[in-house]
Amino acid sequence: MHGEALVTSRRDLLSLIGAMAGSAAMYHAMTSLGFASESPFKGPIRLDGDPKGASVLVLGAGLAGMTAALELRNAGYQVQLLEFNARAGGRNWTLRGGDSFTELGGATQTCEFEPGLYLNPGPWRIPYHHRALLDYCKRLNVALEPFIQLNHNAYLHAAGAFGGVPQRIRVVKADFQGQVSELLAKATQQGRLNDAVTREDQEILLQALRSWGALDRSYNYKASLFSSEYRGYASAPGGGLSAVPVPSDPVALSDILKSRLWRYLQNFANYNFQTTMFQPVGGMDMVGKAFAKELGDIIRTNAKVTRIQQNDRSVTVTFVDRQRPAIVQTATADWCVCSIPLSILSQLPLDVGPAVKAAIEAVPYAGAVKIGLQFKRRFWEEDDAIFGGISYTDLPIRQIAYPNTGYNRSGRGVLLGAYLFDGANAYEFSAMPPAERVARAVEFGAAIHPPYKSEFENGIAVAWHRVPFTLGCSGDWSEEARKDHYANLCQIDGRIVLAGEHASALPAWQEGAILSALDAISRLHERVMKT
Amino acid sequence: MHGEALVTSRRDLLSLIGAMAGSAAMYHAMTSLGFASESPFKGPIRLDGDPKGASVLVLGAGLAGMTAALELRNAGYQVQLLEFNARAGGRNWTLRGGDSFTELGGATQTCEFEPGLYLNPGPWRIPYHHRALLDYCKRLNVALEPFIQLNHNAYLHAAGAFGGVPQRIRVVKADFQGQVSELLAKATQQGRLNDAVTREDQEILLQALRSWGALDRSYNYKASLFSSEYRGYASAPGGGLSAVPVPSDPVALSDILKSRLWRYLQNFANYNFQTTMFQPVGGMDMVGKAFAKELGDIIRTNAKVTRIQQNDRSVTVTFVDRQRPAIVQTATADWCVCSIPLSILSQLPLDVGPAVKAAIEAVPYAGAVKIGLQFKRRFWEEDDAIFGGISYTDLPIRQIAYPNTGYNRSGRGVLLGAYLFDGANAYEFSAMPPAERVARAVEFGAAIHPPYKSEFENGIAVAWHRVPFTLGCSGDWSEEARKDHYANLCQIDGRIVLAGEHASALPAWQEGAILSALDAISRLHERVMKT
Repeated sequence: MHGEALVTSRRDLLSLIGAMAGSAAMYHAMTSLGFASESPFKGPIRLDGDPKGASVLVLGAGLAGMTAALELRNAGYQVQLLEFNARAGGRNWTLRGGDSFTELGGATQTCEFEPGLYLNPGPWRIPYHHRALLDYCKRLNVALEPFIQLNHNAYLHAAGAFGGVPQRIRVVKADFQGQVSELLAKATQQGRLNDAVTREDQEILLQALRSWGALDRSYNYKASLFSSEYRGYASAPGGGLSAVPVPSDPVALSDILKSRLWRYLQNFANYNFQTTMFQPVGGMDMVGKAFAKELGDIIRTNAKVTRIQQNDRSVTVTFVDRQRPAIVQTATADWCVCSIPLSILSQLPLDVGPAVKAAIEAVPYAGAVKIGLQFKRRFWEEDDAIFGGISYTDLPIRQIAYPNTGYNRSGRGVLLGAYLFDGANAYEFSAMPPAERVARAVEFGAAIHPPYKSEFENGIAVAWHRVPFTLGCSGDWSEEARKDHYANLCQIDGRIVLAGEHASALPAWQEGAILSALDAISRLHERVMKT
Repeated sequence: MHGEALVTSRRDLLSLIGAMAGSAAMYHAMTSLGFASESPFKGPIRLDGDPKGASVLVLGAGLAGMTAALELRNAGYQVQLLEFNARAGGRNWTLRGGDSFTELGGATQTCEFEPGLYLNPGPWRIPYHHRALLDYCKRLNVALEPFIQLNHNAYLHAAGAFGGVPQRIRVVKADFQGQVSELLAKATQQGRLNDAVTREDQEILLQALRSWGALDRSYNYKASLFSSEYRGYASAPGGGLSAVPVPSDPVALSDILKSRLWRYLQNFANYNFQTTMFQPVGGMDMVGKAFAKELGDIIRTNAKVTRIQQNDRSVTVTFVDRQRPAIVQTATADWCVCSIPLSILSQLPLDVGPAVKAAIEAVPYAGAVKIGLQFKRRFWEEDDAIFGGISYTDLPIRQIAYPNTGYNRSGRGVLLGAYLFDGANAYEFSAMPPAERVARAVEFGAAIHPPYKSEFENGIAVAWHRVPFTLGCSGDWSEEARKDHYANLCQIDGRIVLAGEHASALPAWQEGAILSALDAISRLHERVMKT
């Protein structure tokens, strides 16, 4: 859902796993062919063999649960899926005008967006290498359009730098790269790289740095029409007799360094956020809806699970219909795939062994807050020439993300006015009443876009720690917990197997949920075939 | 149309102009507000005052001519527009199944693409800062979608490097940046930057390089799960018990340097190609068609201009209807805006002074070849996970550009199988019969995408030097010619003023054509108001 928040801890975690897993020799073989397939998804799952009427209860109609239900049904299982919400999808969720939801604490918000405008409060983007999710989008006819992560004309903003004036990403990017190139080119010319780089390579390195850094013939990065070709012009080339371009002046390296705006630059190059990213046309929930349509009445909504029991022959799930909560019901099947978030599952009576229990207890859930704001006009396009993409700030709102659809149109627009997932900040926003969250987002955002104040119309704020069906945005594994508990969490315990983004190495991503489900049902099916 | 070809000469040219134009002081004032408007376009043109029935003949229904006709008509002028082709649009042109055209030399090609697939043989992308064109798209309701210039998963290919195996852009980009960062970080640590960077800034620079270059704690760029977060994995993180990621091994800096693949990296950051770029939904000619619809019967198609005369009261244009070429016709008006390409205009009898004549003669037209190829399936997406964007190669085809629409769908696809504009190479392809151009594109492309050979269905090849209405792709100004002749070309000569991309500092771009027209008619209107 929000990979950025997890990069550091995931990186540390993965370093560990990587060290255990050993070498990358296979990769050499693959890349020498030039067509390495890095994804663990190797095409549609094959569950060969006849399950002979075996039945499976799937719990939770998020992408993990619906993937499991769809593939098990297709393989010949009898499948029923119990879902807490009145809709399928789980965190695959889109808010549109008229939608209403109640958060923990009782506050109810009704979305007032104009028809056609929306907010994806959960996942909002799909990397090109999330091959499993893309495969389901293809099979289920979910139309995709680009999600713009890096917009060179969006802003980087630090309240304490450049007098609080936001800087265009292209400016920070070009000037940092140019001045780093100048420093290295000069060090090369002064012979200071002689021990590290051959003379022959130094010659080419200088050419490369001149090109890559937009340096002049003396390897200086400075105001010129060449550097302006990357950072932008004071006045851009035009037509007729008013055509003369004027170069722009670079920002000093020292100012960029002290501003710390360089922190954001590599985000855009991250494997998870590289071009080409996607979003479903019309809202992320087009994916969940497509799954749900395929599953039909296999999904029973409004079913609140209260207990999960198993013995050596079957699994029995106790639940209530949320519209008739006094009537306790049960469902029994041979097997169970449980995709209920661990934050919820840890509160239920559940017949599993101590290792799985301990694993379920070991994973806290991350908070995250997303705030959608509707404005009278798309001033970010009209005034700032920002079409899609994300501005970053060190203000508590952290991000302003512009809609990647309806570009260049007149009329109203909805942007993501805050997306925050850092602990204390997320807690603080989660503690506010929704209207105050929205008001803060407008107040902070106005520091970057002054028209906020006059153009704002309405907003909606989802604080994931208060969302009843997840109590958080995603499983927040620590490196230690992952080492001690991850494998236990994923093991089949008797007749029950867990699935979901929490049972993957891609926490908070829909791909993790789907890959987790595919891995779980592969092993489950193998066991069924053996018995 | 193809800014890349012109970067070097334009840069030199612009340096000269920039030097003459002087300082960028204004920019400082503007950026200190954080909202610099770099575009010479300052909003819809205002032609105040009553032209009192003055008439204007506009020649050429490309974007320059249609912009002039539209705005002059709106300002109260009597306008007629003569167009050589059977359609309006000029180089704003899209080829679809059933379209047919005949090139110089007599070869006729008929496009065989499946319905819904297309090729833009001329302009194909719109930068976010081309504000004039975007404004017309908005006013004329032309829907836009992103054009992907940089796709991290597309290829860079050099026949003589890496055994001819194409490299993912993300790999070259991450490894070059990482190893440059390592070199500079080590030089910093060794005190070799002490004369250039303060101690305080060196501390921050090291942090920045570690982040930006994906360096480890010792400032090394090497195989790790951290560097894999940018260059990609040997095996990416997955779900359940098959989740373990495997890091990938960087390519040595020396190999990247010698491959010269670094040449392409900065292309993606160029102001003209930065995110967010656009293309009209359905084909670039949606723009031309929207203009033409607005102009209605003001446009007379199939009108081949054979002579342009003026005296001190009027302009008379001689032309023939191409369907009845024996009948010579004339049209007379008070003024003339001529957007006929200089390559054609230089061959017509034209009543202008020697300075304008010399300017018209001074501009050769660049060649360019674009080849569209239809394949049975979108193997670049299905096999290579390349969704949109461009692969670059030093083979004669130079580029393979993938469609930025219909992502992730089954069925056929059309890609741009060659886009070349370098002199000798363009001449060589232009000299071939169209079928041979297509065959070569398939042959060369197969070196990058082996499925080319089995999946190819049909193709179409536009060699701009052979296109009868332009005899080239765009005005190819030398630095010297620009200095001597540009201002003369743009001056109103008697009752005639020229417009088009050739009369702009944005050669080959639609924005240049429009800005040129707006500048020309502003001056023309001023003159009319004075007389």
